Amino acid sequence: MTQPAADARERLSLYDTTLRDGQQTQGVQFSTGEKLAIAALLDDLGVDYIEGGWPGANPTDSDFFATPPQTRATLTAFGMTKRAGRSAENDDVLAAVLNARTPAVCLVGKTHPFHVTTALGISLAENLDNIRASIAHIVAQGREAILDAEHFFDGYRADPAYALECLHAALTAGARWVVLCDTNGGTLPADVGRITADVIASGVPGDRLGIHAHDDTGNAVACTLAAVDAGARQIQGTLNGLGERCGNANLTTLIPTLLLKEPYASRFATGITPAALQNLTRASRRLDDILNRVPHRAAAYVGASAFAHKAGLHASAILKDPRTYEHIDPARVGNARIIPMSNQAGQSNLRARLKDAGLTVAPGDPALARILDRVKMAEDTGYAYDGAQASFELVARRELGLVPTFFEVKRYRVTVERRKNKYDQMVSLSEAVVVVKIGCDKMLSVSESMDALGHDRGPVNALSKALSKDLGPYQAIIDDMKLVDFKVRITQGGTEAVTRVIIDSEDGAGRRWSTVGVSPNIVDASFEALLDAINWKLIRDGAEAPKQAARPAPAAIGNA
Amino acid sequence: MTQPAADARERLSLYDTTLRDGQQTQGVQFSTGEKLAIAALLDDLGVDYIEGGWPGANPTDSDFFATPPQTRATLTAFGMTKRAGRSAENDDVLAAVLNARTPAVCLVGKTHPFHVTTALGISLAENLDNIRASIAHIVAQGREAILDAEHFFDGYRADPAYALECLHAALTAGARWVVLCDTNGGTLPADVGRITADVIASGVPGDRLGIHAHDDTGNAVACTLAAVDAGARQIQGTLNGLGERCGNANLTTLIPTLLLKEPYASRFATGITPAALQNLTRASRRLDDILNRVPHRAAAYVGASAFAHKAGLHASAILKDPRTYEHIDPARVGNARIIPMSNQAGQSNLRARLKDAGLTVAPGDPALARILDRVKMAEDTGYAYDGAQASFELVARRELGLVPTFFEVKRYRVTVERRKNKYDQMVSLSEAVVVVKIGCDKMLSVSESMDALGHDRGPVNALSKALSKDLGPYQAIIDDMKLVDFKVRITQGGTEAVTRVIIDSEDGAGRRWSTVGVSPNIVDASFEALLDAINWKLIRDGAEAPKQAARPAPAAIGNA
Repeated sequence: MTQPAADARERLSLYDTTLRDGQQTQGVQFSTGEKLAIAALLDDLGVDYIEGGWPGANPTDSDFFATPPQTRATLTAFGMTKRAGRSAENDDVLAAVLNARTPAVCLVGKTHPFHVTTALGISLAENLDNIRASIAHIVAQGREAILDAEHFFDGYRADPAYALECLHAALTAGARWVVLCDTNGGTLPADVGRITADVIASGVPGDRLGIHAHDDTGNAVACTLAAVDAGARQIQGTLNGLGERCGNANLTTLIPTLLLKEPYASRFATGITPAALQNLTRASRRLDDILNRVPHRAAAYVGASAFAHKAGLHASAILKDPRTYEHIDPARVGNARIIPMSNQAGQSNLRARLKDAGLTVAPGDPALARILDRVKMAEDTGYAYDGAQASFELVARRELGLVPTFFEVKRYRVTVERRKNKYDQMVSLSEAVVVVKIGCDKMLSVSESMDALGHDRGPVNALSKALSKDLGPYQAIIDDMKLVDFKVRITQGGTEAVTRVIIDSEDGAGRRWSTVGVSPNIVDASFEALLDAINWKLIRDGAEAPKQAARPAPAAIGNA
Repeated sequence: MTQPAADARERLSLYDTTLRDGQQTQGVQFSTGEKLAIAALLDDLGVDYIEGGWPGANPTDSDFFATPPQTRATLTAFGMTKRAGRSAENDDVLAAVLNARTPAVCLVGKTHPFHVTTALGISLAENLDNIRASIAHIVAQGREAILDAEHFFDGYRADPAYALECLHAALTAGARWVVLCDTNGGTLPADVGRITADVIASGVPGDRLGIHAHDDTGNAVACTLAAVDAGARQIQGTLNGLGERCGNANLTTLIPTLLLKEPYASRFATGITPAALQNLTRASRRLDDILNRVPHRAAAYVGASAFAHKAGLHASAILKDPRTYEHIDPARVGNARIIPMSNQAGQSNLRARLKDAGLTVAPGDPALARILDRVKMAEDTGYAYDGAQASFELVARRELGLVPTFFEVKRYRVTVERRKNKYDQMVSLSEAVVVVKIGCDKMLSVSESMDALGHDRGPVNALSKALSKDLGPYQAIIDDMKLVDFKVRITQGGTEAVTRVIIDSEDGAGRRWSTVGVSPNIVDASFEALLDAINWKLIRDGAEAPKQAARPAPAAIGNA
C-alpha cells in the first residue's frame, strides 16, 4: 500500500513493470539473478510497486517468486483473470499466481468486446463474471488486488458502457486499483485525457485509477501525463522504457518530470526522494549494463547527450549562464553537462572543457590556439572528439606538456589465421605480440584471443589482452579497466576508406571514458584508441612516469 | 511555398531540419556528399521545406549551398537575425546566408528578455529592431522569410507581452511563418497547447504559425501535436529525431500519426503521399546507414521491434486477427510484423523478395520455411540482410541447392605488424596469404596492402587483394569488380562485441551489390562478406563450377 505523504500534496503511486512487461522487449531475456538485481535497483529508486513477473508462466518467473526479494516496495505477481467455465478457486493458472504469496496481485482482464468475443471466444457476461470472481478471490485471501484493464481505450471507443462496466465490476469486487491500459499503444494523449476524465465522471475515484501506456506513437510519456492531468493517480511504466514492441511509458523520463516540473512538483508527492533522483542516471546505465544493452544517448534526462551542447551559439551562452540552454540542472538527475569539441567551438568552450578535465588555462594562453589547431587538423583526417572526451583531453595535455611517457610501444605484430582444426572444422585464431619499453625495461607480451568458450574474438581483442598483460609498475592501475563498447566507422568510402575506432572503457569505480583512433588500418586505429584509454587512466589515477623517461613524447606510440 | 491540397482538408506544412538541427546530434558530422544524399531522401519523402544548414558557419554547409541540390521542396538556408549596431545590409553573417540564394531563409531570433540581455547583451528594443530589419531585408530580396522564435515558451512565461511583440514584428515585416521554438525542450505538452492558443488569440494566424519542439522531457511529438491541436500549421522536425541534446520532434513518428490517426487524417493534408509513407521505414534505415548509426529498434512505427509480438498471448491472437494487438497495419509505413514463434507470416514476403532476385518458388514449398529458419538463425547471431540483398540471395540459393562450389578457401593468414622502418619512423605493414582450391588445383596467393603512395591500407585490403589475385578460370569475371564501400558495426557492446561488416561492390557494368559477414573477428567477418561478393558475381555472370567439384557446399569457406 502506498503511504500518504507528510506534506499536503496528493500522492502519486509509481508501479514498475520492468520485470514483467519489460521482459517482452525484443532481445531481452532475464535470468533470475538479473531479476533480483533489477528489483534491488527499483527498490533503491523508491517505486511503490514492483511487478515481478507471472508465476507459473515461465521457469525464470517461477524461480524469482520461489525466493522473492525482501523489498520496501509492494512486490506484485501478475496473471490473468480466471478462465470461463470454472471457478476462481479451480483455475490452475490463477492458483499459480496466488501461490507466489505476494502482498499484491495484478490481473489483466479484457474490457473490449471485440477481444472478449474474438480472442477469448466467450460472452460479454462471462468476461464480467471472470473479472468479478477473480478479484474477489484475491481480496478474500487478504491480498491487494489490481486490475489491468486490457485494451481499455480501444474498448471504450467501441462500447463505452461495457468498458466502464468491467472497471466497476472490479472495484465493486474490492480492487484497490483499476488501470487503464492502452495495450496496442495507438491512443493519442488528447484521447487518453478525455477518456480518463469520462471514467472518473462515471464514478471511478481517481485515487483508485491507474494508467498503463505504450510508446507506439512516441507518446507514452505524454499519455501518462494526460491521464494524471485528468485525475488518475497510479502510473505504470518501466525503467528505460523497456517493453513489448516500442516499449512502455518510461519511468526514467516520468520520474524527473513529476519531481522537477510544474504543475506536478507542487501538486504531487511520490516515493522518490531527491537523493534517489540524483541516482537516476546511474540506475538507468546500471540496467543497461545488466542487460548488456548500449545506453540510448539521446534519452531524456539520463542520456549521455541529454546535456551536450554542440551548437556554437548554445555552448558560448551556456558558459555565461547554464539556464540559457538547459531546462534543468543536470546534477539533479545525476547527469552531467558536456560541451563537445567540434569545429564550431571556440576558445571559451575549450577553456570550460579543459576545466572539466581539471586543467586551468588562462584566457589568451597561446596553448589554447595550438590545441584548437591540433584538434582541427585531427578532425580533418577523420578524428572525432565529440564522442571521445578522454582522447580530446590527451590532445590538450600533450600540447600543454602534461602527458608523461609512461611507456613506449616499440612494436607489435598481430596474426589472424583461418584454417581447419584437427576435427576438420574451419576455425580462426588471432595472436598478438607487443613489445613495450618502460623506463629501461623492455617487456614482451603475447596473447591469443579466446573467450571463455574457446572462441576467437579477433585481432583487436588479442592486442588489447597482450598490451594489458604486463605493464610492469602500472599493472595494478589498469587491472580494473574493461572495454565496454567498441565502435567502428569508415570515414571515406571504398578503397580509400579510413577507419575511425571509438572505444569506451570503464573501471572499477564506475568511471567511463571514450577514446578515438584513426587509420586506414583498422587494427592500428583500434590500437591507438586502446593506448589513449590506458594513458588517460594512468594520468587520472596519478601514475608517475618512470625516472628514465625524461622527454615527453607527443604520443606514446610516436605516430606523429 | 506550400500548395493548397486538392481536397477540403487544411494543409499542414512539414519543415525538415535534419541537415541543420540534426547536425547538432552528438557524434554526427555530415560530409557534403551525405548532406546531398539526405536532401534527396527528404525530397522523395515529400516534406515541404528542407533546411540545408547555415551558409558561412562551416565549410560543409557552405559547400552544400555552393552547388545546391534541385529539390521539389523549398530549400531553406538558416541563419540568425542581424546583430545590433549595424544594418541588415551590412551584417556579414546575414549576407553569407542570403548569398546562398535559396528561395526561403529562416532566421533564429530571440524572444526571451533574459536571453536578449544575458546572451546577447543588448536592449529589448534593439532586439525587436534586429528581427524587423532582418525579416524585411529577406523579403525585399524576394525570398520567403521564416522566423524561428528562440526560447519562445520560456520567454512567454517570463514576459508574454514582449514575446508576442517579437512575433508580430516579424509578421508585420513580412515573415511567411513565425515558429514557436521550445529551444531548451523543457515545456510540457499542456503548456505548449495553452500558449499556442494564446498566440493565435493575440492575432497571429494559425496558417502562419509553426512549432519546433525538442525531446528533453520525452514529449517532442506530443508538444507538436498539442500545438497543431491549438491551431499551428507548420511542423519543424527531423528524420529519426536527430538533433541537439535529446533530439528534435521526430518526423518519422509524426508523419504516420498525421496521415493515419484521427482527428489528423481527416482534418489535415500534407505533402506526403501514401506511397511515400510506405517508404518511411526504408528512409529511416537509409539515414542510419548514411550516418552509420545503429537503428533504434523500439522506434515508433519504423523500429525493427515496432510490430514484434513477443508475448505468447499477443502472438496467438495476432494470428486470428492482426488488429487484436496492432494499432496500424505495419505495411502502411513499410514495416513488417515479426512473430518470433511462427514463421507463417513471413512466407509471402519471402516469395516476393526471392522473385526480385529472379527465383520463383511455389507457395507452400518446404524450402520457404527452411530459408526463413536459416535467415532467422543468422539474424539471431548478428546478420542483417536488409542492407545486404546479395548475401540474402545467396542464403536462399544455398537452401535451394543453387550455389555451385566455384572454389574453396582452404586457409588464409593475415599479419599486421607495426614497427620502426629504416628512417626510424613507426610504420605498419599488412600481408595476407590465401590458399584456394579450384577443382583439383590449389593456388597460393600473397599480397601486401599498399596504396599508390606506399601507405598500408590494412588487413582487409590485403586479404581482398590476395583473394582476387588469382582465381584461375574465374579471374576474367572478377577483374572488373571493385570494393566501393565498407561498413562496420558492432552488434553487441563490450567484450561480447560481434562485428558485422557490410561490403558494397561494383562491377564494370555499373552493377552494385551488398554482402554481409559476421564474426567476433573483424577480419573473418570481412572475409566472409568478400567471399559472398565474389560468389554472387560469379552466379550472376553465369560462371560454371569446375567439373571436379560435384557436391554443393553450404558456404564456400565451409563455416557451417
